[in-house]
Amino acid sequence: MELMQRHFPIIRWLKKYTKEDAICDFIAGISIGLTMIPQSIAYAALAGLSPQTGLNSAFMGCMIYAFLGTIKEVVIGPSSLMALLTYEYTHKLNLDFVVLLCYLCGIVEFVMGVFRLGFLVEFISAPVVSGFTTATSVIIVVSQLKGLIGINFESNGFVDNLYQIFIHLHNLRWGDTILGVFCVIILLIMRKAKELNVPETWKYVNFVKKALWLLTLGRNFLIVVATSFIAYLYKNNGYQAPFLTSKPVEGGIPSPILPPFSTQIGNKTYDLGEMVAELGTGYIIIPIIAVLANVAIAKAFVNGPVEATHEMLTLSICNVIGSCVQSMPTAGAFTRSAVASASGVRTPIAGLYSASLILMALGFLGPYFHYIPKATLSAVLIAAVVFLIDWKIFPSLWKKSWLDFSCVTVTLISCLAFGVEIGLLIGVLMGIIHLIYKASRPPLNIEPGKELVRVSGRNGLYFSATDYFNDQLQRYASGSGTVAIDCSTFSGIDFTAAKGLASLINSFQKRGQKLVLVSVPKEWKELLLCAGVKGGCIQSEPMDDIDSENTQPLLQIEEPTNTETYRHSVRETAQSA
Amino acid sequence: MELMQRHFPIIRWLKKYTKEDAICDFIAGISIGLTMIPQSIAYAALAGLSPQTGLNSAFMGCMIYAFLGTIKEVVIGPSSLMALLTYEYTHKLNLDFVVLLCYLCGIVEFVMGVFRLGFLVEFISAPVVSGFTTATSVIIVVSQLKGLIGINFESNGFVDNLYQIFIHLHNLRWGDTILGVFCVIILLIMRKAKELNVPETWKYVNFVKKALWLLTLGRNFLIVVATSFIAYLYKNNGYQAPFLTSKPVEGGIPSPILPPFSTQIGNKTYDLGEMVAELGTGYIIIPIIAVLANVAIAKAFVNGPVEATHEMLTLSICNVIGSCVQSMPTAGAFTRSAVASASGVRTPIAGLYSASLILMALGFLGPYFHYIPKATLSAVLIAAVVFLIDWKIFPSLWKKSWLDFSCVTVTLISCLAFGVEIGLLIGVLMGIIHLIYKASRPPLNIEPGKELVRVSGRNGLYFSATDYFNDQLQRYASGSGTVAIDCSTFSGIDFTAAKGLASLINSFQKRGQKLVLVSVPKEWKELLLCAGVKGGCIQSEPMDDIDSENTQPLLQIEEPTNTETYRHSVRETAQSA
Repeated sequence: MELMQRHFPIIRWLKKYTKEDAICDFIAGISIGLTMIPQSIAYAALAGLSPQTGLNSAFMGCMIYAFLGTIKEVVIGPSSLMALLTYEYTHKLNLDFVVLLCYLCGIVEFVMGVFRLGFLVEFISAPVVSGFTTATSVIIVVSQLKGLIGINFESNGFVDNLYQIFIHLHNLRWGDTILGVFCVIILLIMRKAKELNVPETWKYVNFVKKALWLLTLGRNFLIVVATSFIAYLYKNNGYQAPFLTSKPVEGGIPSPILPPFSTQIGNKTYDLGEMVAELGTGYIIIPIIAVLANVAIAKAFVNGPVEATHEMLTLSICNVIGSCVQSMPTAGAFTRSAVASASGVRTPIAGLYSASLILMALGFLGPYFHYIPKATLSAVLIAAVVFLIDWKIFPSLWKKSWLDFSCVTVTLISCLAFGVEIGLLIGVLMGIIHLIYKASRPPLNIEPGKELVRVSGRNGLYFSATDYFNDQLQRYASGSGTVAIDCSTFSGIDFTAAKGLASLINSFQKRGQKLVLVSVPKEWKELLLCAGVKGGCIQSEPMDDIDSENTQPLLQIEEPTNTETYRHSVRETAQSA
Repeated sequence: MELMQRHFPIIRWLKKYTKEDAICDFIAGISIGLTMIPQSIAYAALAGLSPQTGLNSAFMGCMIYAFLGTIKEVVIGPSSLMALLTYEYTHKLNLDFVVLLCYLCGIVEFVMGVFRLGFLVEFISAPVVSGFTTATSVIIVVSQLKGLIGINFESNGFVDNLYQIFIHLHNLRWGDTILGVFCVIILLIMRKAKELNVPETWKYVNFVKKALWLLTLGRNFLIVVATSFIAYLYKNNGYQAPFLTSKPVEGGIPSPILPPFSTQIGNKTYDLGEMVAELGTGYIIIPIIAVLANVAIAKAFVNGPVEATHEMLTLSICNVIGSCVQSMPTAGAFTRSAVASASGVRTPIAGLYSASLILMALGFLGPYFHYIPKATLSAVLIAAVVFLIDWKIFPSLWKKSWLDFSCVTVTLISCLAFGVEIGLLIGVLMGIIHLIYKASRPPLNIEPGKELVRVSGRNGLYFSATDYFNDQLQRYASGSGTVAIDCSTFSGIDFTAAKGLASLINSFQKRGQKLVLVSVPKEWKELLLCAGVKGGCIQSEPMDDIDSENTQPLLQIEEPTNTETYRHSVRETAQSA
């Protein structure tokens, strides 16, 4: 039973599921569904796929996460990031490749979960996430501009997209542009609807408030329905709509079939191996990004530990089963989680209500999907991601943390210039170099004195810091006093650093200066001895004992010795270097 | 003048050069020369080159280092590592490629010096150097076995070499084998000659002692001369020597010509671009290894700081000018430095005497080089490198430092299996991963108490440690007491960790527990505030002030609170994970 609860957390929720929980989850579930249906269609379009694929993906994601998920705010489905990456890896191929990619992503996520590789996301720092999110949002806005103004072209990356828009600008369709801009403005206004001040004296104040709240939450759904209705009216009256609409849709409840392991494009037949080869690095990069996105969302909404491995396995199952209903790769999405949280979600069961709504849309509304104007979908996406652009981080980090500022800037620029995955990689590498640098230049405190030079630190003493440590001591600790290195202030040592200490002791001894290691932890001793440090220089006692033993004269001196502390902080040494 | 002294350290030495210095340098210089002449020929042979190339390289290295070098024990010339790598990158090409490689190595070393990339060698830890040296020595011994037993084949790497020796064993030439083994034995005996106990009562005790000392130092030279004389006697009397001898040599003083920027192999003409392309990664890998070798040698003999950048530039000039006398890539060599040190070298001027000796050898002895038996050269190399094999490090690190032990083992095995450069790279990566791991799992001390939970650390608090830190605090610091994090015990913080602290404070607050940051350094404050930490939680005062303020009741409690310290060392958490 406990094992069942562990693997199917829905049992945990159902055990103490109250009527109130059910109502809250229902409202939240429907709200999520209303946001999700048009978003999924738009994200599918972003990936170059049909609305049905988007809805199938959303349905399966919601459904499975309701049973297996642990974080109530997370909703698995198509996301802008997944869509962009899917487009990048499959835009020259067909739907079979997308479905296989979804399947492979599930498998890779499963392997990552089994090998507990969730710790990898720790290396994605906040500035990197911020630069990455901002860059992605900017890329989405720019990539949707062509839909908004009704032009059409193929492009490679962000810079090429800007260029193509510029040279295709004369093909602009006024019908699409007017509709698109109008939709964006309406959406931005509706976003603020629930914040409207309703005079408390009104008769229907509560009803109006609720209506405004629904208007805000359901704005994406409403705008899609309204503009589709306009297109329907045009066509029903025998006119051509003055804007482009989506491709015709084969609606209908998704029926399970195995993911395709061979396919045909034109005259060429691809077997599984060739398909996998065509997908390139996609089935490695996409799972990593998906896991990153999910963990980032989880971190934003959950206080406390996140079951990273369980979440990874759940995402894997969503993708593997999803691939059996022709789904695209799925993950959590920030916007949906924000909706869920604002709607007062109580448990992941809310996903079941969303899934039902999506299923109804698939069953009844399928035939009407081809009335949806392209410009409306672009407007929905632009209005959603524009608020993810985090400009404020630049002034707020400027001059406060030079490294974090450069990290977010470099990540943003390289995401825009070289693509999001390469940008992410560059950001992560910058962070890792930072860590290595900090480990190689540990802060040291050297307090020189006539009789005793005290040396302490606040870091580990490892191989890459050995030269630096020895240089600093040669430079600032040489003189006549006994040098006492307080080992308890260092968090660890390795063989190279131990050898470095041995050579330091020798070189001080040659000059006639004594160097002792004080407060040496028990577990260091053997390593120090084996690295060649003489036993006489190793003392378990703290520095004060040495003080009273060796420096009796110091205590009797009337005037205080020069105890000015040289704090060789990293910044100082970096500047002087 | 000071600038001249900086750039031409020879001026420094000459300013206070005494007669005694001159005598010591002369003896050391001649000893180095005696070791270097046969070694250079052998190393050149190892790289598949003529003896003259080896001697030219040695001459130029000694000459230029005498003027520009700062470390008296370093002698630039052909080395086993340079020879192996040169062979790896050029064994299918001709001498022009070797000379161009030498030139390019010089240029790359110059660039490394100008950009102060010397710090890169800090990332090569002692276990990596040890594994690398041992592997190189083993590879040299195995690669020289074929010369020792007179068989001939082409091989790719260490494992293939062993296999080829095995399948070619039936081609063994007894003449070469007997000579080779005999030479090895003689060399090993002569190595111990100077340690022979000469009865102090003997008449010529000092003379005998000096002779034995010379026998030890000059053993390589003597064995080459002696066996070459045997070959000469055979040929002079009209017989075929029963062993293989070296290729005929065009002797003569090296005359300067520019390095070749185009060449021809068979019918194919290579221009500069094609030559560079053929050399692959050689002109990047070889300079890095050369700099590593030089710094490692310098570290072994010098107590005190090494002018890494100056040394790098000197090595670069040795290679660039060397390439004008048809030199192979050069670097320092451990064996030569050991000879120099043992011979009591005083200044790098000793190199001038070695260079003169090599020049004489090139001028007068050139025609006789083709009498040198191949087996003798193999014997010289085997007897030299066999002592560089560092078996002792395995038992001495075993169980003392698991990480260092695995590092030396992995480096050794991967050097043997995949080649020395890849092995070195793997070793360096292991070390870097270790640093990253330590930075991500900082040691924390959490002292729980009813009224006050004290948290301190001994490391920086950076992005990769954020999750771990928060998890640990959620797990071990939650309760009723105020949690006080002593920031002065952490050596640094970044934006991600600051955001982590903000979310930690929020999540503790939600549970009704207070979390304060005490002893916050001035430079942290702005960053903490900008990451969302409330001002009320940041206090510059140390923990004790908080103690007396907030936990008055604690001090009045009769029985001591539970102050058992949970030391979550890296190992413990690693085991529980």
